Amino acid sequence: MIVFLNDRFVDEKEAFIGISDLSIQRGFGIFDFFRTSNYVPLFIDDYFDRFFRSADYLHLDPRKTREDLRKIVFELVDKNRIPTSGFKIILTGGYSVDGFEPATPNLIITHQPAEISSEAKFEKGIAIILHEYLRDIPTAKSINYLMAIYLRDKLIAQKADDVLYFKDGCILEFPRSNVFIVTKDKTVVTPAENVLHGITRKKVLEIAGNKYKAEARAITLSELKAASEVFLTSTTKRILPVLKIDNVTVGNGEPGEITRSLYGSFRELEDEYCRKNPITF
Amino acid sequence: MIVFLNDRFVDEKEAFIGISDLSIQRGFGIFDFFRTSNYVPLFIDDYFDRFFRSADYLHLDPRKTREDLRKIVFELVDKNRIPTSGFKIILTGGYSVDGFEPATPNLIITHQPAEISSEAKFEKGIAIILHEYLRDIPTAKSINYLMAIYLRDKLIAQKADDVLYFKDGCILEFPRSNVFIVTKDKTVVTPAENVLHGITRKKVLEIAGNKYKAEARAITLSELKAASEVFLTSTTKRILPVLKIDNVTVGNGEPGEITRSLYGSFRELEDEYCRKNPITF
Repeated sequence: MIVFLNDRFVDEKEAFIGISDLSIQRGFGIFDFFRTSNYVPLFIDDYFDRFFRSADYLHLDPRKTREDLRKIVFELVDKNRIPTSGFKIILTGGYSVDGFEPATPNLIITHQPAEISSEAKFEKGIAIILHEYLRDIPTAKSINYLMAIYLRDKLIAQKADDVLYFKDGCILEFPRSNVFIVTKDKTVVTPAENVLHGITRKKVLEIAGNKYKAEARAITLSELKAASEVFLTSTTKRILPVLKIDNVTVGNGEPGEITRSLYGSFRELEDEYCRKNPITF
Repeated sequence: MIVFLNDRFVDEKEAFIGISDLSIQRGFGIFDFFRTSNYVPLFIDDYFDRFFRSADYLHLDPRKTREDLRKIVFELVDKNRIPTSGFKIILTGGYSVDGFEPATPNLIITHQPAEISSEAKFEKGIAIILHEYLRDIPTAKSINYLMAIYLRDKLIAQKADDVLYFKDGCILEFPRSNVFIVTKDKTVVTPAENVLHGITRKKVLEIAGNKYKAEARAITLSELKAASEVFLTSTTKRILPVLKIDNVTVGNGEPGEITRSLYGSFRELEDEYCRKNPITF
C-alpha cells in the first residue's frame, strides 16, 4: 500500500522514521482513525475535527490544513483502491534534540484494508471484563495504549473480548471503543466525561436522541449491572452488544431490541453518507 | 555517533524503524538509561537487571542476553569514545501486524554525550510543584511519558524545575527521578511502592542505611511538608536538593547537611566503581 509521510507518498515498506522521534523515545504522539465504506471515507470531517483537537491538546503542530489532509486522503483512496479500508493519521512528537522536548512532528498517514464487524458478530455479541483505570488526558486521542496492550493477557486468560475501564465507581470506556447502556426505562446513556469522544458514539447518541431518551452523563457500576442492554461503539465495530460482564449475563443474553434498532439506524446513516458523498474514479 | 539497531552498528543518522512499529502506533515499549563516567558505564549490571525486569513485565522478548548487551555497550564505548555519555536501550513492541498485538521487538541502543548535573547545580537546588498522578505499571520503565511531556507547560508557567507526582495523599516520584525526604529525627525515607526503582535511588538508600536510619515506605504529603530536607535522585542528576515545593521553602532554603553528606558518599561510590572497572582502549 501507499502511505503518506510528511510531504510525500511512499510505499509502506519504505516508510521509516528516525529513532530519535519522540514516539519511539517517549511514546508521545496523537492519531486518529477512520474507515471507508465502498471507497468513501465515512464522516471524515468529524474525524478531522477530533484530529486537530487532539493535536491542540498536546500542542503538536498538525503541519497540514484540513483541506491538505482531505486531498491526501482522497489521493490515497485513488492510489490504493481498497473498498473497505482504515486510514490512520499519526502525528508524533518529532525528532527531539534532548529526547524529551517535542519538535516538529512527523506526520504519517497509513491506508490499509480493514475488517469491519459483521452481522454475525453483532448477533454473537461480546463478553467483557472490568478494570479500574483512567486513561491519561482521556479526551485526546494519544498513542498511549500501554495499559490496553498490557491487559491483553488478562483478556485471554479470562476468555473475554474486551475490557471496560472504570474509575471511582463510574464506567468510562473500552481501550478502543465507547460504552452505552440502556436503562430499564429505555433511556440510552453513555459516559460524558473522562472518555474519548468517539465519532460512532456521537452519531449513535444523535440517532438515539431521535428515537428514545438519550443522555451523556456519569454511569455508576450499579447502573451498569442493572442495565437492560449494554453495547459498545467504535469505528470498525459500529455497534456490538455486550452480553456478558465478568461472566454475568446481561439481560436475556441476546442483543437487545434498542441496541438492534440503533444498529439498523446507524447502518442507514452510513449508507446515506455514502450516497451523498460518492467516489468517482 | 554510532548506535546499535537489532543486529548491527549503524550511524545514528541512518537509524530508522518502520512506521508499523508498536512504539509509533501505540507508544508501546520499554527502555533503560545509564551513563558513563570517564568512559566507564556506571553500575551497568543494576541497569541490565532493571532492563530485563521491564521487558519481562511487558512480555517483550529482550532479544539479547546480558552478555550480548554488555559486549555491544563496550563496543560502543570504544567506537564513539565519549568520556561522559548516556546509553539508552529501547525495546519496542515491534512490527505489529494488526497495529495492536506485539511482535518481535526492535532493539535500539543509542550512545550520546550526556550532561551530568554539576556541583553548582547541587548548590542551587531546584524548585518543584506537585501533581496528582500515578504512572501506568510504575515499576516497569516503559516509554510512556505522555503526562510528563504534557506537564512541561505547567512547569514553565510556574517557573518550576520539576514536578513531583502524588496519589491518594502519598508522594511517589518525579517523571524521571526518585524522591527522598529527611525527617526531623534524621531518618532518610523514599517511597517503596508504585514508583520506578531507580538505580541511584538504590545506591543512595544503601549509603544512607550505613550512615543514618533509612527506610523505603509510603510518605504522606504532610510528611513531605514537615521534612527538614528533600532531594531527588537520578542517573544524570545524581542527587539534587529540593529547596522549594509549590513556592514554599524547604528547611532554611539551602542544601541540607544529610543531603550533602549523601551526595559526597555517592560521588565516592562512583569513583570507586570507576577505579574497580577501568576501561582500557
